[in-house]
Amino acid sequence: MEKERAERKRRSQQLAQRYRVIRKETEALAASLEVEDQVVQTMPDVSPTKWHRAHTTWYFETFVLGGDDPDYRPIHPQYRYLFNSYYNAVGKQFPRPRRGLLSRPTVAEVGRYRDWVDRQILERLDRCAFTTEQLDILELGLHHEQQHQELILTDIKHVFHSNPLHPAYSETTLPPPGGETAPLRWKAFEGGVYEIGYSGEGFHFDNEAPRHKVYLTPFSIASRLVTAGEYLEFIEAGGYRRPEFWLADGWERVCREGWEAPLYWSREGKVWWIFTLHGLRPLDPYEPVCHLSYYEAEAYATFVGARLPREAEWEVAAADLPIRGNFLEDRLLHPTASSSAKEGELLQCFGDA
Amino acid sequence: MEKERAERKRRSQQLAQRYRVIRKETEALAASLEVEDQVVQTMPDVSPTKWHRAHTTWYFETFVLGGDDPDYRPIHPQYRYLFNSYYNAVGKQFPRPRRGLLSRPTVAEVGRYRDWVDRQILERLDRCAFTTEQLDILELGLHHEQQHQELILTDIKHVFHSNPLHPAYSETTLPPPGGETAPLRWKAFEGGVYEIGYSGEGFHFDNEAPRHKVYLTPFSIASRLVTAGEYLEFIEAGGYRRPEFWLADGWERVCREGWEAPLYWSREGKVWWIFTLHGLRPLDPYEPVCHLSYYEAEAYATFVGARLPREAEWEVAAADLPIRGNFLEDRLLHPTASSSAKEGELLQCFGDA
Amino acid sequence: MEKERAERKRRSQQLAQRYRVIRKETEALAASLEVEDQVVQTMPDVSPTKWHRAHTTWYFETFVLGGDDPDYRPIHPQYRYLFNSYYNAVGKQFPRPRRGLLSRPTVAEVGRYRDWVDRQILERLDRCAFTTEQLDILELGLHHEQQHQELILTDIKHVFHSNPLHPAYSETTLPPPGGETAPLRWKAFEGGVYEIGYSGEGFHFDNEAPRHKVYLTPFSIASRLVTAGEYLEFIEAGGYRRPEFWLADGWERVCREGWEAPLYWSREGKVWWIFTLHGLRPLDPYEPVCHLSYYEAEAYATFVGARLPREAEWEVAAADLPIRGNFLEDRLLHPTASSSAKEGELLQCFGDA
Amino acid sequence: MEKERAERKRRSQQLAQRYRVIRKETEALAASLEVEDQVVQTMPDVSPTKWHRAHTTWYFETFVLGGDDPDYRPIHPQYRYLFNSYYNAVGKQFPRPRRGLLSRPTVAEVGRYRDWVDRQILERLDRCAFTTEQLDILELGLHHEQQHQELILTDIKHVFHSNPLHPAYSETTLPPPGGETAPLRWKAFEGGVYEIGYSGEGFHFDNEAPRHKVYLTPFSIASRLVTAGEYLEFIEAGGYRRPEFWLADGWERVCREGWEAPLYWSREGKVWWIFTLHGLRPLDPYEPVCHLSYYEAEAYATFVGARLPREAEWEVAAADLPIRGNFLEDRLLHPTASSSAKEGELLQCFGDA
Ligand SMILES: [Fe+3]
Ligand SMILES: [Fe+3]
Ligand SMILES: [Fe+3]
Ligand SMILES: [Fe+3]
Repeated sequence: MEKERAERKRRSQQLAQRYRVIRKETEALAASLEVEDQVVQTMPDVSPTKWHRAHTTWYFETFVLGGDDPDYRPIHPQYRYLFNSYYNAVGKQFPRPRRGLLSRPTVAEVGRYRDWVDRQILERLDRCAFTTEQLDILELGLHHEQQHQELILTDIKHVFHSNPLHPAYSETTLPPPGGETAPLRWKAFEGGVYEIGYSGEGFHFDNEAPRHKVYLTPFSIASRLVTAGEYLEFIEAGGYRRPEFWLADGWERVCREGWEAPLYWSREGKVWWIFTLHGLRPLDPYEPVCHLSYYEAEAYATFVGARLPREAEWEVAAADLPIRGNFLEDRLLHPTASSSAKEGELLQCFGDA
Repeated sequence: MEKERAERKRRSQQLAQRYRVIRKETEALAASLEVEDQVVQTMPDVSPTKWHRAHTTWYFETFVLGGDDPDYRPIHPQYRYLFNSYYNAVGKQFPRPRRGLLSRPTVAEVGRYRDWVDRQILERLDRCAFTTEQLDILELGLHHEQQHQELILTDIKHVFHSNPLHPAYSETTLPPPGGETAPLRWKAFEGGVYEIGYSGEGFHFDNEAPRHKVYLTPFSIASRLVTAGEYLEFIEAGGYRRPEFWLADGWERVCREGWEAPLYWSREGKVWWIFTLHGLRPLDPYEPVCHLSYYEAEAYATFVGARLPREAEWEVAAADLPIRGNFLEDRLLHPTASSSAKEGELLQCFGDA
Repeated sequence: MEKERAERKRRSQQLAQRYRVIRKETEALAASLEVEDQVVQTMPDVSPTKWHRAHTTWYFETFVLGGDDPDYRPIHPQYRYLFNSYYNAVGKQFPRPRRGLLSRPTVAEVGRYRDWVDRQILERLDRCAFTTEQLDILELGLHHEQQHQELILTDIKHVFHSNPLHPAYSETTLPPPGGETAPLRWKAFEGGVYEIGYSGEGFHFDNEAPRHKVYLTPFSIASRLVTAGEYLEFIEAGGYRRPEFWLADGWERVCREGWEAPLYWSREGKVWWIFTLHGLRPLDPYEPVCHLSYYEAEAYATFVGARLPREAEWEVAAADLPIRGNFLEDRLLHPTASSSAKEGELLQCFGDA
Repeated sequence: MEKERAERKRRSQQLAQRYRVIRKETEALAASLEVEDQVVQTMPDVSPTKWHRAHTTWYFETFVLGGDDPDYRPIHPQYRYLFNSYYNAVGKQFPRPRRGLLSRPTVAEVGRYRDWVDRQILERLDRCAFTTEQLDILELGLHHEQQHQELILTDIKHVFHSNPLHPAYSETTLPPPGGETAPLRWKAFEGGVYEIGYSGEGFHFDNEAPRHKVYLTPFSIASRLVTAGEYLEFIEAGGYRRPEFWLADGWERVCREGWEAPLYWSREGKVWWIFTLHGLRPLDPYEPVCHLSYYEAEAYATFVGARLPREAEWEVAAADLPIRGNFLEDRLLHPTASSSAKEGELLQCFGDA
């Protein structure tokens, strides 16, 4: 009993520390935005920044604070409805495509909502008031918040791209286009029964478990990501005008929606531009291509006579690599060209795309 | 020549005075809004407040400042595109239904745009630098801005109504529901040839001219507006479920869009509520009904065995009345019940609905 | 009493004769169609031919046969629902845009429905069994059926035009393109109070009455219809690319729907074609332009510095003309060039467009 | 060489025989339809019967007759365009959702198209004029035609169901609702590496090959299909109102499209009806439930605490069973209740659903 409590205490302290860091990181991502930027929603799949900030807070309020105290009083009775997302079992949700129609609560009110929840969470962590199960849910909430940090960036990219003024999210200058990419090699893997899925003791999302076996036929995987320059060859070979490369559903969308290049690419005369979180810049042929739809990736693979890896193949290939890459913490906020690699090494498995 | 210049000078001074008042009034209307409120667009016909503030400014920049100076430099090269509205002849326009997707320019930047244009307009008025024709266009711009002041209020009403938090635009308390309405009487007019259209020397919109003759058959017009209570009788008689009152097109929309009451009315149990610029409040049966669509007004008229007046009939009936009513300047921002009237007098012809 | 009955008898005989002719004319219009042609609906405003044939029959069944006999048994209990159109007061209707989804009743069954109703109508006319009021409704039904004859032709034109095989409705050869059009002159009318509306004793639709006065300012009306060649000048002057000619709503549709020429016109290289009920044929520059939308007609008028006539102006201008023209009975089924006219005469007021 | 020719001859004779049978079967399926029934398209995924009859013919014309003879003249130059479907590489296609707008070619013309192609195919088969590769393509075309036979029935079911007259495709009476179903048992399979995919020498679709290994964890599969009565328990437990059973995407569709029961089920008072190819009939609780969407099947499985089998699991379970079931040839055209089974036997693996 003592031991259980000691363990909870240790974990509460550790989580309080991570809670502070991760919650602050979310605020830091929003800090360079204007109030107005946090309000708009440029397509149904995009959510306003202030919604992300409130929804991640709603998670902690609902699942960590809400359940255990009959005297619990929310800061606002309708936040439960406004900031619920896909958790149908928790109750009705405000319709997702209308999130950008809400001017209230304001950005400042969302900030107060965050503070209000943070104070309660940290106060209870401090006095070790959560059960182990609640701590598990809290830990899941931190990973949930990190997912939404990623969404804040992808969503604001779409918001800024939709604006003819093309604002830049980050004032930092990107490194100049590189002059080199590692040659693409194929790394072969043998067929057979492999084990995949999370095998450790720590946190993992439920869809990363259980550990299980799969049979894979022999396959090879490319040593690095496809570059923008390589993808440009597909475009210049008429890739977006030739149905033979595309799945039928994909071709139907190419035609119906008039696809001509990846989202965020545009051409002016002969020069290709790419819209980034740093604003518009000339396309670097050595940078990895990203923001491809499944259909585009599949068509490109057909074009070069390859196929996309299965999820299990990628997991097997990536399993033993060190986790090293171009992550959010580095604030580059854009994929970079791969440096050269030793024979048989896989590059850019984490972070770049 | 001297005289022309003296006249222009007099008029420039007068317009400078009105310009200051009207431009300030627009800012005053926006002053009680949060930044976020000025950004959103809840239906294609609604425009964000900051768009109204920028668009009315664009009018002066384009039509008053823009034409006469080859050295003219805009404050931003794309404002011309973003804030053009239905003036197709002036160039391409940013698509109207997407106005709410623009976080930039910010509310503050729009404020700076207004200041920048105001300074130039006032400086030129001060040195009598505009031609008579430019002064005419400037005067039209002031009326244009007053129209958009009206739109700022109707649009923000829709924005706030769309939000489950139902914010109030104005903190002022409305007077309590009145207990009385003047009885509805019919005032008769003889048939014959009438003259309608603007007849004076002052400003008028182009669709108010020219003065012209119409032949009207004898008609009668009601002495006051229809009240909410009277309209409620239509609802309670099954008005929204009985096709016999409706034009075919109107009935089609009733069915397709599920109409059950005027926009902004809602029922909770047996109590009817109305959403106003002062927030939700119980429906006052004595207040005039407003925000009716043409189809609803027409169906109500059929229900009571009357018909809607033609535009020319209304103009003839209203022509000799003193302009007196519940206007924007009074900041009531909601229609009020009519006081009792003398026999044969028409009430509420201006302002209430 | 005797006299009333004699009058009813005379009128019953006369209407029986007209009933036979008009009902047969509808069948004659459908006779050259394939069964398949009578089924499809190529846009919501188009109805299948067999629907027109059944709906006009439904009119007689519902309003002439249905009301007066409690023992009345319909040939099919659901025809009342399927073939009701905009008469909301009569009951629920099958949704208009889905008429083309009904393979049953078949074309042959619709024919039997027509025969079955015809037998009853004619039998009762024969024994003078209808009241005067029923005879009035029957007479209205004949005019209603003639309206639908027109719709059968306009609708099948759209059906055939939508088919890449471009079938021809009529095998008859049109006269070769003419080489001449009367010069366009303007006929002037004085301002003043005019009487319009039907003034006789015979049949008229309710919206053609009552006779009433209007005040018209002086106006002029063209002596003949606009020709295809004249309209082509509008197109070649960039009419469909220049917003200055268009109403704002019209321009919005030009852009959204990609209008480039009137419906049924197409260009191949430098040659213009027109789709007619006789199939595709080269556009005759001397034929009147038709199938223009309101927006196109209005834009063309603006282009040539004129305006469209008001309905009352057209009625005043046409009031004294002999009814002479290119009608359905002539089976030309396409407008023809106007022959030359005497000074001050108006041409093509009936039939051509 | 001699041997190759002898083999081709044998195969040509055998295929000629099957060609005659299968092509005649398609015509037999259409024979009980009215001409009108073959024209309409009640949703984008439905094709008109005459389109199926023409499209399967187009296959043989394009891929078997078209390629090898430069002198080849089509019966109609536009059939290639009209009856192409998803084969983007073969050229442009008439838009799928508009197939029901085509009254021409007529049903009779489609019949002549079929005859014309049949004569050529059979004549060439007769003189052994096809290469082995062409015979392979022809054989694939026969399987393709059998797939479309299935579609003719599923599509006409939707066409008849959309019609308020609810016509019956087949006049045959279904056997009366049975009184018994085999009890549902679970048959267990061990985990391990299995081989799946077609392993024989004969015809198979390309997505049935190659033979390959999969690793399966231990699983159990039900001994028979779920019955309508069992599914009704799900409905009566509020299955269509409780989000906890549904995938998020599925729940979104339940709400948006107002799902309350499987397609073709309807309730009148307390009685459930099912629309079949034999018309409306009371739902037999013992018949297998069918026409379920993936989301409904998945929600039902969640409701009963099971999950849907993976494709590989089903294939492993079904691999050793005799192919025996309720097929098209039997003309029952509706699933039937399973008879009782021996312990551990799987029933209804073929045909019923
Ligand atoms: Fe989330
Ligand atoms: Fe404006
Ligand atoms: Fe009608
Ligand atoms: Fe096919």
